[in-house]
Amino acid sequence: MEQFNNVTILKKANTYFDGKVTSRTIVFNSGETKTLGIMMPGEYEFGTDKKELMEILAGNMEVQLLGSEDWMTITGGQSFEVPRNSSFKLKVTELVDYCCSYLSE
Amino acid sequence: MEQFNNVTILKKANTYFDGKVTSRTIVFNSGETKTLGIMMPGEYEFGTDKKELMEILAGNMEVQLLGSEDWMTITGGQSFEVPRNSSFKLKVTELVDYCCSYLSE
Repeated sequence: MEQFNNVTILKKANTYFDGKVTSRTIVFNSGETKTLGIMMPGEYEFGTDKKELMEILAGNMEVQLLGSEDWMTITGGQSFEVPRNSSFKLKVTELVDYCCSYLSE
Repeated sequence: MEQFNNVTILKKANTYFDGKVTSRTIVFNSGETKTLGIMMPGEYEFGTDKKELMEILAGNMEVQLLGSEDWMTITGGQSFEVPRNSSFKLKVTELVDYCCSYLSE
């Protein structure tokens, strides 16, 4: 899907790591929320409350999920899931454009 | 207004200057478009087709409109207009979160 129709978008950006990661929050009529965000090259770690689906629209990164030794290479068109109440480490090697969905299990 | 309701948002980000400036396009039912964007600290120049209203939600920058010698200091909560078919120079000193409206005169 190339666009989201009939949604609410919060004007103010979410910013992390001195603006190297930023996103906008989108609210659907169902109450579900997603964020559309940008990650500049760099290394980051994020925690999760809900289960998350990270859809990479463009860019290149390595991802390590909590409890795993392995680093997964993720590029544009690919996605990965992060369990709720967990965390994941990221090494962004090429500007990442992403869509994060917060899933109620 | 803190949010835009009932809009369409294009998933893919607009990226400029190696990702130091990025934005998302929002389309209103009226057909009007706006972008919500982020500018990292740095110096940029943009051209305009339509007249633009640049609303600075947060951050700090200096702006010079085409044909002017003066630099205006613009901070969060302030805005400025750029005529159509023109251009403007920017010196961003603190991460800028902005909303750009494209005005049909």
